[in-house]
Amino acid sequence: MTTTPTAFPQLGSSTPGYAIVAFDVGGTELKSALIDPDGVFRDVRRTPTPHDSADPAGVLVARLAELLDDYRAANPNLEIRTVGLSVPGIVDERAGTGVFSSNMGWLNVPIYRLAVDAFKALVVLVHDTRAGAEAERQLGAARGFDDVVVAVIGTGVAGAVIANGEAITGGGYAAELGHATIDLNGEACSCGSRGCLETIASAGAIARRYAARTGKEVAGAKAVLEASAAGDADAQAVWDDAINALVTHFAQLTAIVAPEAIVISGGLAESGDALFVPLTEKLGNVLSYHRRPQLLRGQLGGNAGLIGTALAAREHDEFVYGEVR
Amino acid sequence: MTTTPTAFPQLGSSTPGYAIVAFDVGGTELKSALIDPDGVFRDVRRTPTPHDSADPAGVLVARLAELLDDYRAANPNLEIRTVGLSVPGIVDERAGTGVFSSNMGWLNVPIYRLAVDAFKALVVLVHDTRAGAEAERQLGAARGFDDVVVAVIGTGVAGAVIANGEAITGGGYAAELGHATIDLNGEACSCGSRGCLETIASAGAIARRYAARTGKEVAGAKAVLEASAAGDADAQAVWDDAINALVTHFAQLTAIVAPEAIVISGGLAESGDALFVPLTEKLGNVLSYHRRPQLLRGQLGGNAGLIGTALAAREHDEFVYGEVR
Repeated sequence: MTTTPTAFPQLGSSTPGYAIVAFDVGGTELKSALIDPDGVFRDVRRTPTPHDSADPAGVLVARLAELLDDYRAANPNLEIRTVGLSVPGIVDERAGTGVFSSNMGWLNVPIYRLAVDAFKALVVLVHDTRAGAEAERQLGAARGFDDVVVAVIGTGVAGAVIANGEAITGGGYAAELGHATIDLNGEACSCGSRGCLETIASAGAIARRYAARTGKEVAGAKAVLEASAAGDADAQAVWDDAINALVTHFAQLTAIVAPEAIVISGGLAESGDALFVPLTEKLGNVLSYHRRPQLLRGQLGGNAGLIGTALAAREHDEFVYGEVR
Repeated sequence: MTTTPTAFPQLGSSTPGYAIVAFDVGGTELKSALIDPDGVFRDVRRTPTPHDSADPAGVLVARLAELLDDYRAANPNLEIRTVGLSVPGIVDERAGTGVFSSNMGWLNVPIYRLAVDAFKALVVLVHDTRAGAEAERQLGAARGFDDVVVAVIGTGVAGAVIANGEAITGGGYAAELGHATIDLNGEACSCGSRGCLETIASAGAIARRYAARTGKEVAGAKAVLEASAAGDADAQAVWDDAINALVTHFAQLTAIVAPEAIVISGGLAESGDALFVPLTEKLGNVLSYHRRPQLLRGQLGGNAGLIGTALAAREHDEFVYGEVR
C-alpha cells in the first residue's frame, strides 16, 4: 500500500511499535486506514463494499480481514493490536450486533463476534454516525459541548444525540433523525412509514421533489438551491418545505434534549449560508425560553466516521494496554 | 400534625431515629410529608404555596422552614437530617438554581443555597417532573425500563426523558415536551412561541379549543371526550387534533431517544382507553422499524412528585450516612 496524503488530524503518539487499523463501512464504500504509533493516518483507502445477500456479514468480515492482512504485510515492523470497526444502520454496540441495515442487507448479525474471530486483534465496534459525532466533538465543530446533536444530511438523514457527554443509544434505535415524523399524511418513506424528515429535507428528497413537481430532472439539491436563487418558484417551494421540516424537527430536538449545538454535516451542509442563515433565523423565531442551540457546520466532512472509529479504537487500546502519551 | 392515611408506598426502613422530610412545590399547592425511619409517609399535607413577586424564592423557603419546624415539633424523638425539595419549571439541579418558572414567578434563583441556609439540614434539590418520573421508575408504571419518557398531561404538558437510566437534563431545559413545536403556524402559546404541543393536546387546550370552536363552555377535556363519544363532530375534531399532535410528538420522541415505554400521567391519563387505544393504534401505524414504545398509564398519580422527592432525599441520606437496609 502507499501512504495517502490526507487532511486527517494527527492523533498524538501511542506505544512505539503498535498501530491501530480503522474500518468505516458504508453501503457502497469501505474506508480504512492505519494509524501509526505517531498518531498519523497512513494508507487511507476507499474500496468497494462487498455484498452477498446470503451472508452479508460473513462476506464483509472476510473482506476486512484481507484488508487487515494487507496492512499487516505493508507494515511488518508494527503490531496491529486493536481494530476499530464502524457499521451503519441500527447498531447495538453493547450486544455487538448489527440489528438492522438496509444498506448492508442484514438483520441481527453478530458482527462483533465475527470480527473478533477473523481479525485476531482487539475489536471495537461502533455505530458510524455516533463515531463521526464523537470525532466532531473531540476534534471538530462540536468541541466543548456536552449536549450536542449531529445531523448528517445527504441522500438520507442520519444522526447522533449526545447528552451530558454520552451518546444516547436506545438499544441502537435512538437518533434516527431521518425517520422522525414531520407529516402524518406525508409522502411514503423507504422505511415503510410516511412523512419522515428525510422524505422532505434530505438532499435526495429535495432533488426528487423538485423533479416530481416540475417534470425536470435536476443534478441534486445544490441545483435546486441555485434555481431557487434565480427566482424559480417551484425550487423555492421545495427548498422552503425542507427548511420548515428541519426547523420543526430541530424545535422538537430542542424541547426534548436541549442541545447546546446542532452540528450539520453531509452534502446539504455544503450549501453553506443558503442553508444556515434561513434555518437559524426560522428556528430562532419558533423558540421562546428554550435553550437555543447554535447551528454549526461539521468540520470533518466525510472523514468524520473513519476518524471517530480510530478514536474509539485508540481509546480502547489505551484502556487495555495503558496510556503512553 | 396528624398522621394522614395514604396510598403512599412504604420505602423500607432506614437508620432508627432519623427521618426525612419531602416538599413538592407546585404553583398553587405545597405537598409535604415526613418519611419515618420505617419508611412510612406520615403527616402528608397540602397547603397553599405563598407568592411574593418581589421575593418569590425567599417567601417560599421561609414557608417551607415553618413547615419543617412543625414536623420537627411534632416528632421530637426523630432527627430530620435530610430534606428533599422539588420545584417546577427549568431547574438546574447541579447548579442548585431555579432557572425559570412562570408558575413560581422566578428567574435564576439560588433555591438550593437559600434552602440549605434556612433548613439547617442536608438538602436535595430536584425537578418536580423528573422526581415524579423517577418514582414511576422505581415504584410505578416505568419499573424495569432504562429508556423511558414520562409525559404529564394536564393544564399543560410536562415531561421527563430517561436514557440508559439517567435523566437527560440539558442544563435544566430538556424534556420540555409541552413546548415542542407541532405546527409552525399554530396557535400562540403562553411561552411566547406558537403551535406548541400543549396548545393542542393538553387537557386545558382540549377544553379551550372546543369552547373557542363552538362558543359552548365546557367543564374540561373529559366533557369534550364524552361529547365526542355522543357524536358531537366538533368535539371529535378537537379530540382528533389532540391525538394526532401526541402521535406526531411521540413519533419524534421515538426517533430521537427510542424509549422502551412512554408513561402518561396527569388529568388526561384519566381518560383511560379513550386516550390509550387510539393513541397506541395511530402511533403503531406511523412507526416502521423503530423501537416501538409501550404506552402506559402512570400508577402514582398526583403523588408521584412527592414520592420521587422522598426517594431522592433518602438516596442522598443513605449516600452520606450509610445504608442500613
